[in-house]
Amino acid sequence: MIIVLKPNTRNEDRQTLLEAISKRGLKPVEFAGTERSTIHVLGDVNESVAESMKSFECVENVLRILKPYKLASKEHQSQKTVVKVGDVSFGNGEFTIIAGPCSVESEAQVMESAHMLKKLGIKIMRASAFKPRTSPYDFQGMGIEGLKLLKKVREETGMLVETEIMDVRDVKIAAECVDILRVGARNMQNFDLLKELGKIDKPVILKRGMSATINEFIMAAEYILLHGNRRVILCERGIRTFETAYRNTLDLGAVAVLRTLTHLPIIVDPSHAAGKRDLVPPLCKAAAAVGADGLLVEAHPHPDQALSDGAQSLTPEQLAKLMEELRPLCIAVGRRLA
Amino acid sequence: MIIVLKPNTRNEDRQTLLEAISKRGLKPVEFAGTERSTIHVLGDVNESVAESMKSFECVENVLRILKPYKLASKEHQSQKTVVKVGDVSFGNGEFTIIAGPCSVESEAQVMESAHMLKKLGIKIMRASAFKPRTSPYDFQGMGIEGLKLLKKVREETGMLVETEIMDVRDVKIAAECVDILRVGARNMQNFDLLKELGKIDKPVILKRGMSATINEFIMAAEYILLHGNRRVILCERGIRTFETAYRNTLDLGAVAVLRTLTHLPIIVDPSHAAGKRDLVPPLCKAAAAVGADGLLVEAHPHPDQALSDGAQSLTPEQLAKLMEELRPLCIAVGRRLA
Amino acid sequence: MIIVLKPNTRNEDRQTLLEAISKRGLKPVEFAGTERSTIHVLGDVNESVAESMKSFECVENVLRILKPYKLASKEHQSQKTVVKVGDVSFGNGEFTIIAGPCSVESEAQVMESAHMLKKLGIKIMRASAFKPRTSPYDFQGMGIEGLKLLKKVREETGMLVETEIMDVRDVKIAAECVDILRVGARNMQNFDLLKELGKIDKPVILKRGMSATINEFIMAAEYILLHGNRRVILCERGIRTFETAYRNTLDLGAVAVLRTLTHLPIIVDPSHAAGKRDLVPPLCKAAAAVGADGLLVEAHPHPDQALSDGAQSLTPEQLAKLMEELRPLCIAVGRRLA
Amino acid sequence: MIIVLKPNTRNEDRQTLLEAISKRGLKPVEFAGTERSTIHVLGDVNESVAESMKSFECVENVLRILKPYKLASKEHQSQKTVVKVGDVSFGNGEFTIIAGPCSVESEAQVMESAHMLKKLGIKIMRASAFKPRTSPYDFQGMGIEGLKLLKKVREETGMLVETEIMDVRDVKIAAECVDILRVGARNMQNFDLLKELGKIDKPVILKRGMSATINEFIMAAEYILLHGNRRVILCERGIRTFETAYRNTLDLGAVAVLRTLTHLPIIVDPSHAAGKRDLVPPLCKAAAAVGADGLLVEAHPHPDQALSDGAQSLTPEQLAKLMEELRPLCIAVGRRLA
Repeated sequence: MIIVLKPNTRNEDRQTLLEAISKRGLKPVEFAGTERSTIHVLGDVNESVAESMKSFECVENVLRILKPYKLASKEHQSQKTVVKVGDVSFGNGEFTIIAGPCSVESEAQVMESAHMLKKLGIKIMRASAFKPRTSPYDFQGMGIEGLKLLKKVREETGMLVETEIMDVRDVKIAAECVDILRVGARNMQNFDLLKELGKIDKPVILKRGMSATINEFIMAAEYILLHGNRRVILCERGIRTFETAYRNTLDLGAVAVLRTLTHLPIIVDPSHAAGKRDLVPPLCKAAAAVGADGLLVEAHPHPDQALSDGAQSLTPEQLAKLMEELRPLCIAVGRRLA
Repeated sequence: MIIVLKPNTRNEDRQTLLEAISKRGLKPVEFAGTERSTIHVLGDVNESVAESMKSFECVENVLRILKPYKLASKEHQSQKTVVKVGDVSFGNGEFTIIAGPCSVESEAQVMESAHMLKKLGIKIMRASAFKPRTSPYDFQGMGIEGLKLLKKVREETGMLVETEIMDVRDVKIAAECVDILRVGARNMQNFDLLKELGKIDKPVILKRGMSATINEFIMAAEYILLHGNRRVILCERGIRTFETAYRNTLDLGAVAVLRTLTHLPIIVDPSHAAGKRDLVPPLCKAAAAVGADGLLVEAHPHPDQALSDGAQSLTPEQLAKLMEELRPLCIAVGRRLA
Repeated sequence: MIIVLKPNTRNEDRQTLLEAISKRGLKPVEFAGTERSTIHVLGDVNESVAESMKSFECVENVLRILKPYKLASKEHQSQKTVVKVGDVSFGNGEFTIIAGPCSVESEAQVMESAHMLKKLGIKIMRASAFKPRTSPYDFQGMGIEGLKLLKKVREETGMLVETEIMDVRDVKIAAECVDILRVGARNMQNFDLLKELGKIDKPVILKRGMSATINEFIMAAEYILLHGNRRVILCERGIRTFETAYRNTLDLGAVAVLRTLTHLPIIVDPSHAAGKRDLVPPLCKAAAAVGADGLLVEAHPHPDQALSDGAQSLTPEQLAKLMEELRPLCIAVGRRLA
Repeated sequence: MIIVLKPNTRNEDRQTLLEAISKRGLKPVEFAGTERSTIHVLGDVNESVAESMKSFECVENVLRILKPYKLASKEHQSQKTVVKVGDVSFGNGEFTIIAGPCSVESEAQVMESAHMLKKLGIKIMRASAFKPRTSPYDFQGMGIEGLKLLKKVREETGMLVETEIMDVRDVKIAAECVDILRVGARNMQNFDLLKELGKIDKPVILKRGMSATINEFIMAAEYILLHGNRRVILCERGIRTFETAYRNTLDLGAVAVLRTLTHLPIIVDPSHAAGKRDLVPPLCKAAAAVGADGLLVEAHPHPDQALSDGAQSLTPEQLAKLMEELRPLCIAVGRRLA
């Protein structure tokens, strides 16, 4: 951390600041520039300390030098983390597809979905039993009953299943019923939930919050890692901007940046960014080309009957065509479609 | 809801759509314009239905006409909601101040804070026992022990106390220890938490999410109202934009807009938007002038020793000066400082 | 400027960097921290140099310490700039109102507007002869003919007049016809225009760009100052965010921040942020309370006949009421309404 | 256009509104819904009219049904526009590369750049003679002299050259010296410049403004088309968001959306979005995969000596490697690298 002092700082104010730094067990080293004096602070500086330095009147600015995360950083671990689920992997060079309907709607619907996916060689099905809905008047998901249907799909079809978790009280049962738990964008900074997910033995897909910086995104992953679960998959799903022609702005630049900062696998959800199914296939291809480790994509056997997100769900035909198009593209970028 | 059809829509596609509308118990009325045909849909249209209409290929656009919230709207209730806590009120024409430290840090600290506030005529103290922190390495709050200290403050000083609630499992004990519960920006769409808060008999301050639209903000309040708790206070606290000169962009225009849409009281938290204490007083005054019902403002007896948010906490002197300045301003805009 | 080196930087790469710094006439001073080494660079560092440092592979980050503007900064000039126009001033403690229609539409319309304003004691009329319109199919303004009507208003009524300038080729004639020139949000970084405005002897109102940072805003003012014109008035007019309930997010926090950084006068345009006239009065009052030096507000004798921005123009009755309400408010915050 | 009336609108107010619509030569058709009445307005509705409708007190909302642009829309012209320059094309299924340094710095530098590009089979060189710089203290470009150097490059090497135009007064000479003119992000809504570019006989690359919606972007193109120049190429270059880990958020979703709305060719500039050269190659590949018609990418023979944008300029080695990687990728997505 480097502290920039205001010009004309009085000697006694500088002394008070230096003492405050020392009192926190850190070592201050002064440096006199031509127009500003600075203080380098050596030692383990967390955000609270950085913040508290700003509360001194003589401080003009506080510059952080080190990244605030550790376990998630490439400095901590240089080789990529590979998250294995069944015989599928994220982070080992494959381009791994998770697809399926937005919500669990009925036994018939999830079974039909599973068979649709299986036929296309897709091994992981997504489907949410718990639904975070903007309106309390909308379909809120099937809940625990939905989890049980997913468990049944898994037993009867051999598909791996992935679902969203919203409430700390449901973590235990969800971890029993499915193969991968997902934290939705709205819960990226639900820290109590992250802590609980740090204690289970299932992979967690962590979606980026609607307005989360890349830094905050990695810090949220750090919560899960620090509480003991190292199988975290990051998922870029679009950020909120001024543009209204689609639902969210898919931030593929974030994938490129994350690659330089962390060893965790990174996947992309283009469906919630697109909001309309015709925009989904080109974004899937862009995700593969930018270097993502896989996709989380909505597809429904009958989108116009879906209880949620029908407009952005691929039809079975579109999904089949997309898989066809992804195959040569993955080869061209040195990956294997899984 | 009005559905706009694509030009050159085939007759059979229009028929399929009309049937789908009828099957959902709604009544479609066709209208042939010069360049586009539209279908007016009569009946109770929720978001799921509107969404599902977009999944038909012949649909170009779906326009909502009615607001998606009911209980929170001025159409539902024209007179302002007044939330009474002890002998203080929100929404009755007073400009009510809630002030205090960011976190509960120790018994001495909260007691000293309470006395500081009492001396200035402030009747509600804020202080968080649970802290949502971006980094898992930062101070996470005193938790349940902190709640008990707040209870003690309340019993010993007569101050009303307000605190943040993050975890559904803590709602019950928090409701016993404090007078007002606060939902932080990161939890505005933590729907399970909102539902639990709908079942208690304490006022709830709901902060706007960092990137929540005004519409989503009111919808989050609707969750609490619908589950039975009518004592909801909205709190504008700044939104995330591209600007980095301060922490968040305080959206006082939102206060003006909310006033036209809802009967709920509206307060402003300028501290998290400012990020630096010198910016807080002018924003407090602007909040009073724009028509807010009160403030939620951070102040600490010793900001440079605060474990969180020290840089944006007012000093006791600044808080005293602010109260002095707010008094004539409130009179000038027809309010009474409380 | 402080350069942060990547960990494990090779000695020869550090040497190459040090030489590159010296070659640019700057003095590098090395500092070895515990986890990162840094290089302090002494001397006059502009943005190009800072940028070029980032192009070295061994550089992790480049931290700027000094503000990039000079003439506009409070360090350069500690007393506030007062811009005098006729017998009205900006920056001398008054709260100065500029009001009037969006566009010049006809002689009758501007004359009627001038009289409406005069009756309320308002001394400066706004009205645009040149109109930047999103669509080429919309009313593009009366152009030069409109400027001449403004000149006539000024001669016949004694009102001061203010208008927008968009094209470098119109600067000369506009400076002859009106008292204050305005740079609209879309032209804040039209650098050729700023340079020309630096050469004239008329005050310039510089509006903040729709997505301009406060830093870029001041830098745009610096262009005008550097080219010789010291009579620059900054105007906050709302920034573009995700919110669609109003037209732009009025950023009153920016006014508070600007106050700490620059000596230039700062006014607020609430009309373009509001987009609807009912939201304008509360935002005007908030602007006065936050410490602005004045307002730029749209008002029209017959808003429903306006050729542009009718929906956000105050009616004569609303403007009269607003002036009544601003008077005691200005007194309460220690200003005099002008 | 559909006008939504407020509930309980008085009959006389509705009559006044209906008359106002008729007076504008439009035909109103009333429709009584269950909770809101609406008025369909038939005829040619521009933005001014839509705006003016909002100024009536009884109007709750105004919904536009038709797109505000015509010439640029796929409804107006269903086949793709192909812009031919020399023997290169945009929009004919090729993936066309424009590369080169940010600025014209010297004869030696542009010549060396041209030869670097030629060796890689790239046929169009970018280089700016006029530079829009945030700071007046930074390198402002070589101006007219730079244009002449570009002309020389073109004559001596046979390369096609592309450069930025900022000032209406330079349009004529620039059109003589180079093959393609570029409108930078800051000038996307410099309408006087757009009108002038509508009158010349050279292709124009129009970059999306930093915070321009897709709708505004197409409307800016419409200005050029309407004034007579049909050779417009749209360029997505990143939008401004809250994220600071890169320079701008590259919006590849916008490319997918634009494809559904307009027949104009669309290219992508990943350099200004990335801000760091290591992020550029993955974004180039994503642009090819999402369906863009080409790239505008910064590359410099000696990036660490560049007078601007060195950090984001590809080295000759990086550019060569990128071209190698793009070749199979373009084949995989059915395009030919040009």
